[in-house]
Amino acid sequence: MSGSPLTRVAALDALVDALRSLPGVGPKSAARMAFHLLQHDRDGAARLAEALRQALAGIRRCSLCNTYTEDALCATCADPRRDRRLLCVVESPADQSAVEQTLTYRGLYFVLMGRLSPLDGLGPKDIGIDQLVRRVQGGDVEEIILATNFTNEGEATAHVIAETLRPLDLRITRLARGVPSGAELEYVDLGTIARALVDRRGA
Amino acid sequence: MSGSPLTRVAALDALVDALRSLPGVGPKSAARMAFHLLQHDRDGAARLAEALRQALAGIRRCSLCNTYTEDALCATCADPRRDRRLLCVVESPADQSAVEQTLTYRGLYFVLMGRLSPLDGLGPKDIGIDQLVRRVQGGDVEEIILATNFTNEGEATAHVIAETLRPLDLRITRLARGVPSGAELEYVDLGTIARALVDRRGA
Repeated sequence: MSGSPLTRVAALDALVDALRSLPGVGPKSAARMAFHLLQHDRDGAARLAEALRQALAGIRRCSLCNTYTEDALCATCADPRRDRRLLCVVESPADQSAVEQTLTYRGLYFVLMGRLSPLDGLGPKDIGIDQLVRRVQGGDVEEIILATNFTNEGEATAHVIAETLRPLDLRITRLARGVPSGAELEYVDLGTIARALVDRRGA
Repeated sequence: MSGSPLTRVAALDALVDALRSLPGVGPKSAARMAFHLLQHDRDGAARLAEALRQALAGIRRCSLCNTYTEDALCATCADPRRDRRLLCVVESPADQSAVEQTLTYRGLYFVLMGRLSPLDGLGPKDIGIDQLVRRVQGGDVEEIILATNFTNEGEATAHVIAETLRPLDLRITRLARGVPSGAELEYVDLGTIARALVDRRGA
């Protein structure tokens, strides 16, 4: 069809284009998704439109930990059984969810809005480090557990937070690095093995 | 978080769930998409909700060829420069788009709603073969080009259509099979080579 790359139906082109907002979705997948919804799952499409609308209208940030919630405080921060002396700092709600799924952590969280990334123009203020400092000053926190990712940017973010919070009287820790559970050494990258050697502990 | 697998935010869980309507999107991708939209692309999310709404409200089937359109006739069927004696039968608007992008076909189309698939309960009526017969009886069609896929189901669909239309006075053809352009024989499957040998043509 000559007009546009895919179809000559404006509403369809607009839908394909809008689906490309989704991460990891290129023009071919977007077209396949649009055709699938129209041909086989119009109910699903209506449900998706409504879910997007409700999420945009109803979801906001927890005033304490910054994660997504529909109330002023998220369910975790509002839970009286959580240990308020521990604060685990993660890069995203998805990372928070990963820690939470281990079922081994009973403290609270602070969810950054990403990681420091000077190339993308993201400095300490942009990811909420100011808000983290106020959160720590205002509360009963005794230990900060830095659980940013073990990427270059995540490491830099952890370093900056550690230096920023150093003046406050806190224990500041970082998730342990080492060989992953279930890994065979033969297939583990050398940097990880080197680090695990340095950080070796009594058996 | 204990309540649901991912979060304890109902609107977020609903969004993740709705995103799974998209083909090829599992729970992990859906969560990543939801977080991305909320954190980095709220405009994109609003645009997607609106595009879905407009597509559901505005897109219907062309009365002649069955493809998607916002009008009674699609742009292709309404185009006076197309050759009305040729009718190319495809399984989906995506396949129609593929043929159209070759820029070598100037006839019209008929777009089935999928292919025959007895296991999924899809018979001739479900994919619009009745409508195709009426379309052929009502028009100036002289040749039907069967361009269903070269899968088992696509071949069966082509066969059924050919047999159904046989009583009408029409030329019925099928896309040629053979070695794909640019292919090296070493890497082409044997069935394709065998078929290309049988269908060899004067050079």
